[in-house]
Amino acid sequence: MWDQDSLRRIKDALDRWHEAHAASLPARATDARIPVEPVYTPAHVADLDFERDLGWPGQYPFTRGPYATMYRGRLWTMRQYAGYGTPAEANRRFHYLLEQGTTGLSVAFDLPTQMGYDSDHPLAEGEVGRVGVAIDTLADMETLFDGIPLDQVSTSMTINAPAAVLLAMYVALAQKRGIPPDKLAGTVQNDILKEYLARGTYIFPPGPSMRLVVDVFDYCHRHVPRWNPISISGYHIREAGADAVQEVAFTLANGIAYAEAAVARGLRVDDFAPRLSFFFNAHSNLLEEVAKYRAARRLWAEIMRERFGAENPRSWVMRFHTQTAGSTLTAQQPELNIVRVAYQALSAVLGGTQSLHTNAYDEALALPTEASGRIALRTQQILAHETGVADVIDPLGGSWYVESMTRSIYRRAKDYIRRIDELGGAVRAIEQRFMQREIEDSAYRYQQQIESGEKVVVGVNRCVLDDEPRPELLRVDEAQEQAQIERLHAARRGRDANAVKEALDNLRVAAEGDENLMPYLIDAVHTYASIGEICSVLRDVFGEHRDVSTA
Amino acid sequence: MWDQDSLRRIKDALDRWHEAHAASLPARATDARIPVEPVYTPAHVADLDFERDLGWPGQYPFTRGPYATMYRGRLWTMRQYAGYGTPAEANRRFHYLLEQGTTGLSVAFDLPTQMGYDSDHPLAEGEVGRVGVAIDTLADMETLFDGIPLDQVSTSMTINAPAAVLLAMYVALAQKRGIPPDKLAGTVQNDILKEYLARGTYIFPPGPSMRLVVDVFDYCHRHVPRWNPISISGYHIREAGADAVQEVAFTLANGIAYAEAAVARGLRVDDFAPRLSFFFNAHSNLLEEVAKYRAARRLWAEIMRERFGAENPRSWVMRFHTQTAGSTLTAQQPELNIVRVAYQALSAVLGGTQSLHTNAYDEALALPTEASGRIALRTQQILAHETGVADVIDPLGGSWYVESMTRSIYRRAKDYIRRIDELGGAVRAIEQRFMQREIEDSAYRYQQQIESGEKVVVGVNRCVLDDEPRPELLRVDEAQEQAQIERLHAARRGRDANAVKEALDNLRVAAEGDENLMPYLIDAVHTYASIGEICSVLRDVFGEHRDVSTA
Repeated sequence: MWDQDSLRRIKDALDRWHEAHAASLPARATDARIPVEPVYTPAHVADLDFERDLGWPGQYPFTRGPYATMYRGRLWTMRQYAGYGTPAEANRRFHYLLEQGTTGLSVAFDLPTQMGYDSDHPLAEGEVGRVGVAIDTLADMETLFDGIPLDQVSTSMTINAPAAVLLAMYVALAQKRGIPPDKLAGTVQNDILKEYLARGTYIFPPGPSMRLVVDVFDYCHRHVPRWNPISISGYHIREAGADAVQEVAFTLANGIAYAEAAVARGLRVDDFAPRLSFFFNAHSNLLEEVAKYRAARRLWAEIMRERFGAENPRSWVMRFHTQTAGSTLTAQQPELNIVRVAYQALSAVLGGTQSLHTNAYDEALALPTEASGRIALRTQQILAHETGVADVIDPLGGSWYVESMTRSIYRRAKDYIRRIDELGGAVRAIEQRFMQREIEDSAYRYQQQIESGEKVVVGVNRCVLDDEPRPELLRVDEAQEQAQIERLHAARRGRDANAVKEALDNLRVAAEGDENLMPYLIDAVHTYASIGEICSVLRDVFGEHRDVSTA
Repeated sequence: MWDQDSLRRIKDALDRWHEAHAASLPARATDARIPVEPVYTPAHVADLDFERDLGWPGQYPFTRGPYATMYRGRLWTMRQYAGYGTPAEANRRFHYLLEQGTTGLSVAFDLPTQMGYDSDHPLAEGEVGRVGVAIDTLADMETLFDGIPLDQVSTSMTINAPAAVLLAMYVALAQKRGIPPDKLAGTVQNDILKEYLARGTYIFPPGPSMRLVVDVFDYCHRHVPRWNPISISGYHIREAGADAVQEVAFTLANGIAYAEAAVARGLRVDDFAPRLSFFFNAHSNLLEEVAKYRAARRLWAEIMRERFGAENPRSWVMRFHTQTAGSTLTAQQPELNIVRVAYQALSAVLGGTQSLHTNAYDEALALPTEASGRIALRTQQILAHETGVADVIDPLGGSWYVESMTRSIYRRAKDYIRRIDELGGAVRAIEQRFMQREIEDSAYRYQQQIESGEKVVVGVNRCVLDDEPRPELLRVDEAQEQAQIERLHAARRGRDANAVKEALDNLRVAAEGDENLMPYLIDAVHTYASIGEICSVLRDVFGEHRDVSTA
């Protein structure tokens, strides 16, 4: 802390400065309605306690970073989310990204896969391979990862409701190649609560969904120890219109719910907590975002140590992936998105992210082209190698503004979590639409500010061009849908129908009981049972979820 | 300052942290060879004195900003350097930029104009309108500023050796339009010392050159009080290969030399110092750059108050323009320059610049197109309106890293200035090639680091593409050269030859004496005497400078 004499003098001078200058200034606040003073001084963080509030990188409460040496020891993982069309096409893109220097794979799945439907399901029509790659059976995974050494890359899979099925396929693929599961590294998103809350790709009701989540926790702890069995995601919460405080609060509240479910299953917190991972959004307000990441780490460390009594320091650590905010990209003057992405990526790095996806500038219009994807990756490389910001751990630490903002977000998020606790926890709060309503309010405010011009979006409500040139876009070939359906039918023809039936029957029996389903899923995918067939069994047993908003 | 108890604990913990973690880490330093620690704490700036070292925005020593309310009161000026080809073409570009939201004009002149040659001079061949606009006579200025209200814009002119001539033309143009000179706002670069030092477009020897500089100071003080009679430029010093410390030190040393020359002429420091302005380079190392601007402001305030005894607080204030570093842009994968420029621009804004030019991404290849120029301007608009960084004055103030770096640059630059003082000041030090040698050493080191791969330039020595697509480039039409020569000849035919002769004769007599030449220059340009004719008179009287490096 600053000495009291200095602080007194600074406070007096601050009062005089405010009187002379600040009265004439318009008030400012962040989207999270945190007031922004014109100038910050030691007096604004007079009660900052270095050890209690910040500590050391790699030490409780991890405000300054989850690891002791951070990027000075090793850069963040440059993990570009990719994949679309057929598995063969996505495989080519992965090889391209690896050649260009990407350091981790990140698989986007198409909507039918995310919803547990095969490519030939009537609801899949027009959606196969559109927003990601289509995966029906293990045969597709074989193609998708062809030529990629599963024991040498880390793979992130953005899949939620059927996360256990896709993880089973990845494990089965490794087994077929003779790679033991304990050599696999990666992440399944597997965060169903934010699907109810913000993103909408859920299948089953909360009860069985949470069971599947914990099945993955438990299985990974025993067999795939280098795997992150969940990526607790604020990203989509923010994209749905939440502000920075809500993003932290609701994500951590969901994290608490998962941890409680795992503990209720009988798992020891120190057995699963070290592998919980998070996923945040890098939004536009540069320094509020830096503060957000710092506040989130501190709050999670406290929750794990104080609320859950975790004893392993690795259980206290929040590690997170970050993606730049897709919702801030504009279809107008799309090259300007290169600038937005650059600033957003910077916030993630100044905030200590473990991995990062930078959006391609044309994502507001279509799937990224090879060229736009390369610019996005190169943005990370420039950040890493040319700007010097990776040389210092938590380089903004001590900034009176950033420290003040960190504390504001920490306190406000903590307050939200207390309110969610009072409602009975995240699952109950979601059922009561508490978080949804809070997000809707923020989204409405944000939209109003844009419409009134109070909030400027360059190229949209200011600095507009009358005559926009149209950029070259990549569109998914519609013939691909038919090709993928034919692949699925070929896989069905080539398999042992009895083995499939037996595996699915076993899965059904296990689902009706309370065993961990992962071994049954792995057995089933080995027979080339399709994701649709597997999820159909689970739909029968678990039922389907209806949107709580209509309840 | 932090209290001693906290500091002692932090220092002990820091020692333990270093022992446990830092020993294994590679050492890092900035290009200016300032060591970069892995982590910064209050112990790294234990002797930081808030009032002495930082103070308040708008108050001595101005570390946190030259104005009390900074961007919270008014955004920086978005001043895009532009102009090429004929005056008519440059005029169209100015109108375009004003429509797009640029808030100040900045004129680039072609090389013949910068060297005081008319467009029909044999040495001008192939250079007319190439790197900027060609100006021969007042007729060209009339076209260049057609439709632009001189009393409502501010205009910066990048002109040095013949700065007095161009200022005379601007004043004469205003007079012809009935606008009194005291309504004019803008800047002439008029910084001849950095031409000897780094840029090379000098005409006369140092003695008469310094006389012309001070003539402009004196004339502006009396007649054009809102004009900045000089922009003391570190930009080109940095582009020539200087590091951040050298940029600050040599620029301020030149500033001292100008102030001394003005005082020697009998000007009162408080009469000219408030209108001295500066021009810095926004280079790649983001946080070193932020620190650089802060250190430069503090050092200049000290120099003005302590060394020159200035009493008007406005004399202590360093105001500066910034341009992103052209030398860091790559011809390879040129769209990546959008990213570089975005980060560099951010450093200038976090460092409190008064105006900013953002480079177009294709400048490493050719003159910017309308589209690339627009992206550059939009980068500033996104920075201003979307990132939130303009909401807080000196938002990184207090960051232990930024404060430590600010102090390092301040101390090292101060030390350089002491060495230059010992050599007899900037003019003598330049004659002895002291600064030139220091810059060459830095440039050599930098180049070696790139060649060894120690320093990464994305797209150049890493992340290289084999097969670069060529972007569309704007080339200056060669027919323009002939058109400009015809304009010049038409102006000569249309003027009163006797009036021209008389004005040039008067100028010659005045130049041989020691009167202020500005009134004679204004009289001469009113007769449509050309820049070549005027400079030819001055060349006769003053002689021409030969490169000191060959002396």
